[in-house]
Amino acid sequence: MTSPRVGIVLGSESDARIMEEAAQILQDFGVSFEMIIASAHRSPRRAAQYAVEAEKRGIEVIISGAGMAAHLPGVLASYTCLPVIGVPLQGGALQGVDALYSIVQMPPGVPVAAVAINGARNAALLAVQILGIKDPELREKFRLYKEKLAEGAAAKSEQLQET
Amino acid sequence: MTSPRVGIVLGSESDARIMEEAAQILQDFGVSFEMIIASAHRSPRRAAQYAVEAEKRGIEVIISGAGMAAHLPGVLASYTCLPVIGVPLQGGALQGVDALYSIVQMPPGVPVAAVAINGARNAALLAVQILGIKDPELREKFRLYKEKLAEGAAAKSEQLQET
Amino acid sequence: MTSPRVGIVLGSESDARIMEEAAQILQDFGVSFEMIIASAHRSPRRAAQYAVEAEKRGIEVIISGAGMAAHLPGVLASYTCLPVIGVPLQGGALQGVDALYSIVQMPPGVPVAAVAINGARNAALLAVQILGIKDPELREKFRLYKEKLAEGAAAKSEQLQET
Amino acid sequence: MTSPRVGIVLGSESDARIMEEAAQILQDFGVSFEMIIASAHRSPRRAAQYAVEAEKRGIEVIISGAGMAAHLPGVLASYTCLPVIGVPLQGGALQGVDALYSIVQMPPGVPVAAVAINGARNAALLAVQILGIKDPELREKFRLYKEKLAEGAAAKSEQLQET
Amino acid sequence: MTSPRVGIVLGSESDARIMEEAAQILQDFGVSFEMIIASAHRSPRRAAQYAVEAEKRGIEVIISGAGMAAHLPGVLASYTCLPVIGVPLQGGALQGVDALYSIVQMPPGVPVAAVAINGARNAALLAVQILGIKDPELREKFRLYKEKLAEGAAAKSEQLQET
Amino acid sequence: MTSPRVGIVLGSESDARIMEEAAQILQDFGVSFEMIIASAHRSPRRAAQYAVEAEKRGIEVIISGAGMAAHLPGVLASYTCLPVIGVPLQGGALQGVDALYSIVQMPPGVPVAAVAINGARNAALLAVQILGIKDPELREKFRLYKEKLAEGAAAKSEQLQET
Amino acid sequence: MTSPRVGIVLGSESDARIMEEAAQILQDFGVSFEMIIASAHRSPRRAAQYAVEAEKRGIEVIISGAGMAAHLPGVLASYTCLPVIGVPLQGGALQGVDALYSIVQMPPGVPVAAVAINGARNAALLAVQILGIKDPELREKFRLYKEKLAEGAAAKSEQLQET
Amino acid sequence: MTSPRVGIVLGSESDARIMEEAAQILQDFGVSFEMIIASAHRSPRRAAQYAVEAEKRGIEVIISGAGMAAHLPGVLASYTCLPVIGVPLQGGALQGVDALYSIVQMPPGVPVAAVAINGARNAALLAVQILGIKDPELREKFRLYKEKLAEGAAAKSEQLQET
Repeated sequence: MTSPRVGIVLGSESDARIMEEAAQILQDFGVSFEMIIASAHRSPRRAAQYAVEAEKRGIEVIISGAGMAAHLPGVLASYTCLPVIGVPLQGGALQGVDALYSIVQMPPGVPVAAVAINGARNAALLAVQILGIKDPELREKFRLYKEKLAEGAAAKSEQLQET
Repeated sequence: MTSPRVGIVLGSESDARIMEEAAQILQDFGVSFEMIIASAHRSPRRAAQYAVEAEKRGIEVIISGAGMAAHLPGVLASYTCLPVIGVPLQGGALQGVDALYSIVQMPPGVPVAAVAINGARNAALLAVQILGIKDPELREKFRLYKEKLAEGAAAKSEQLQET
Repeated sequence: MTSPRVGIVLGSESDARIMEEAAQILQDFGVSFEMIIASAHRSPRRAAQYAVEAEKRGIEVIISGAGMAAHLPGVLASYTCLPVIGVPLQGGALQGVDALYSIVQMPPGVPVAAVAINGARNAALLAVQILGIKDPELREKFRLYKEKLAEGAAAKSEQLQET
Repeated sequence: MTSPRVGIVLGSESDARIMEEAAQILQDFGVSFEMIIASAHRSPRRAAQYAVEAEKRGIEVIISGAGMAAHLPGVLASYTCLPVIGVPLQGGALQGVDALYSIVQMPPGVPVAAVAINGARNAALLAVQILGIKDPELREKFRLYKEKLAEGAAAKSEQLQET
Repeated sequence: MTSPRVGIVLGSESDARIMEEAAQILQDFGVSFEMIIASAHRSPRRAAQYAVEAEKRGIEVIISGAGMAAHLPGVLASYTCLPVIGVPLQGGALQGVDALYSIVQMPPGVPVAAVAINGARNAALLAVQILGIKDPELREKFRLYKEKLAEGAAAKSEQLQET
Repeated sequence: MTSPRVGIVLGSESDARIMEEAAQILQDFGVSFEMIIASAHRSPRRAAQYAVEAEKRGIEVIISGAGMAAHLPGVLASYTCLPVIGVPLQGGALQGVDALYSIVQMPPGVPVAAVAINGARNAALLAVQILGIKDPELREKFRLYKEKLAEGAAAKSEQLQET
Repeated sequence: MTSPRVGIVLGSESDARIMEEAAQILQDFGVSFEMIIASAHRSPRRAAQYAVEAEKRGIEVIISGAGMAAHLPGVLASYTCLPVIGVPLQGGALQGVDALYSIVQMPPGVPVAAVAINGARNAALLAVQILGIKDPELREKFRLYKEKLAEGAAAKSEQLQET
Repeated sequence: MTSPRVGIVLGSESDARIMEEAAQILQDFGVSFEMIIASAHRSPRRAAQYAVEAEKRGIEVIISGAGMAAHLPGVLASYTCLPVIGVPLQGGALQGVDALYSIVQMPPGVPVAAVAINGARNAALLAVQILGIKDPELREKFRLYKEKLAEGAAAKSEQLQET
């Protein structure tokens, strides 16, 4: 079994429904990954340890989804030199605005790459783009994916005009 | 020298200007405290270690101020059983709304007691109230403080009517 | 019957559904409590009287949930020296943002400890932490609770990886 | 000296700068008023007492300005049958949005009439309109005031076109 | 038939569901009223004419509910010397925040008394309070209503404690 | 077949449900139009090309609906001299506030005419008003439409009063 | 003197500073215009009359700037068949968000074309684009303007790279 | 001269002040870069061409700063397979919230990695982290940078305690 290149870290199991969209994209692109639960607040040592060891274990990019206070991506980023992609998750009374602000407003020195609220798919695509800077085959796959997106829009436009 | 009962933890030195208002209140009430800098993101091990050891060192309440993503109070709370009071600090483009959401919207299991944006004084008064549940003398001081507040409003009202 | 150590005060009976989560936590920790309805606006004298007498009656911490204008925690805090924890409740067109701002933005001198919107469980856990500063047995219970949270995250992570 | 018909109640002396605009309007219309400081949180008994006695003392409308948590208008309304007009005051990190929500989002049963953030002048004009329903002379003054407003706009338009 | 003392003006028929709560309150207090539809934008002349003639027709207070851009209360206020109470209605993507801002942020000179989003009941109660300044019997009814509110909270609290 | 005067451009097929309301209005007014899908992000060349060629193909006004980041109206506007009307679409966690800001906050030099969130019908009516400046017959139709709106409000008011 | 093709209507003289940017653009493009003050609230009859007569007087597009409740563009639109462009003006505690929502969230049937907060220049450019659908010379001027914008960006980029 | 590995693209020259912080970081890390101006709206062809050719020219990561509607990062991302980092810039009435939403809320298929409002430094650090996945020397530099951050916090804490 190939060792994982991307680590997907969830704050709680309820985040899995959305974050599995990231897993699906990575699988489609043939990028090995693992998916674990490690709460920044309920299991902080576990989260810190994961981030500390990720690089040695061969992880190249970390994707982390979290809702509400959503400290997880920032906490992981504080313990690793790997790029960390944060996915703010919709939920609670503030519907993800809290998670977005908490993930994107990181202080100078410790960046997190934020994507849209519930944007798990784009998190995975961004990981593919990042891995693509050293993996020409992966970039080529991404290019084909991008072309299909464009063709899809054209095809749907034709369907629309027929109806 | 008395060992500190309250630990004031700042994310960065620029937070000291506001957080010193908390220190002033504690000093006025004769509550021993210490004030340290430990960033959740730039020095995560230092922040974690502080929270882990605080209780053993005799700290009874932690006050933490942070701006923007403001993960510090939550990170401290994840490593200690002590009550943690979080002060969202005004700053950056979002003026502290980001810090407020990040501090107050903690997930079930790991509470942080949030006060107003830049509410360092109230953070210290809340610490005094908390310590007051085991320290009758301190509660008595707080009662006097409260009475003076009421008298102050009455006195200022009279001044206003004279002008 | 043991006299209550925590008073849970609701602004209206419709708040009971969420606030009972606080009662449940207190019961789990073996902390005696009472739960009453006293609106800041519809029954202001009753709310004031409750706050005035709470300390004498042996209450050590007050938890108060309220929605919309959500003045109740602040009104209680104005009449007592006890720590008051405020739970902003989701509801109405603004979904609890109004209640959050109203509870957390207290003026200097009269603090309220705000938790997350609908964060009744954390309000109770914060009360347990506060009582824990004078009650080592309760703090020990909290420590065990915290350890179980961490184990829970690890266990769920293993389940996730198996599926 | 005429007894006051309108009571202007401020939460703190720093609110006087804006609220004096209300006083000025009342003076221009010849409506007697008084201006006092009574904080909902720092001097709650004083605030409650003022509201309880206002009607007996001949007050017909209460205007109350407050910033941040801004509970004062609601607290006054809870103790009186008189109409209460609330002026959210700009200030603090949230610039008055907190005060606006806290004043306007009153629960069913206890209304407060909210005007614009810092809208002290309109609070006074609203008081004039309210008193006008029993005071034909005052309504006539208001009508003239309204006509002058319209003439003012026309005059300024001519000036603008000349430049 | 008694001529109406309160005019309830809706921007569209879809606003009737909420605004009928105002009608119900007025009926309970025995205050005569009428309810009409006059859009600020779709039928501006009709809205203007209603406001211009209201005073002569014996109307003493206008209540107006509107959603989204919600110009109606302000437009009515621009044509009348009567007090105008505005009810921001929840609806559309912004859930009534747009209507709240549009109704409450009136410019100096032309006040509207804003109540909570969907606060039709409080709009009617505010109208009762306003009419009460010249109608002692109505104020007495309001006082009884207020007492019942307080008793209701106490009764519900007892029920809660029994369960 | 008449060549289209209005081009309705959607970012994705899921936008069609709302944007068809614009098509319906144009059909009611007898204004020829076409409806295509061209994503600003997934098919940027297609979107650019459409905008570049629109004027030569006889299009006089472009209507574009988009949600979330909602760059489409601005991207079209950057490639054409035709007036572009943008419809922010409700959807995602931010419910269209993101789309509204993205469409309306265009920089100096490249305007987009924004309408309400989901305001597809008004986008079409605005297109009719714009075409009306050179097409007196169309303006006349719009005038009749406007008169019917006013009559509709009056008729519904009568119905309301009867019930 | 040529009769004006564009009417710029301000709610108050304080709006002139920003709205003159629209006047400047129109002058640069050689489009005749007039600029008047007519408040939706202080001088409603004047505002209504302006809108009613604009078309007969040869006005083809109305631009209206307003802050806070910002009803003016909507009020003008309710009385005319001409396209109305609304400029939300920054000011007051809400910094123009109130004006933006009030202008853009118009109900179905009565559109206003909203531009950015303080976007007076784009309002004028949009008017130029609208007039351009019947005035090929004006569209040609707009095309040249657009080309210069593009050249300006390229030139500034070269300057930047030299420094 | 080394060909640039990072392309910094500004929407306008006024964005240079903040974006130069990104340039400074890249220079400190010895990462070659270029900085150009290409507006998504004023010079769309130039922006598109830059994105299309970037990869062939050896660019590996694009950083783009933009304010208000802030379409630039998304437009660049639509034309390239390279990872694009977007920096929302504070400015205008909405202070960068508009730019943040516009940059982060990208639709599925075309990710942009958003950093904090005005977070140019973190954008550059994220680029360094991304390049670090193929450049061990650069990652080592980043590790040292991270260690210095932690030491800096400790040193400043000691200074604070001495004063």
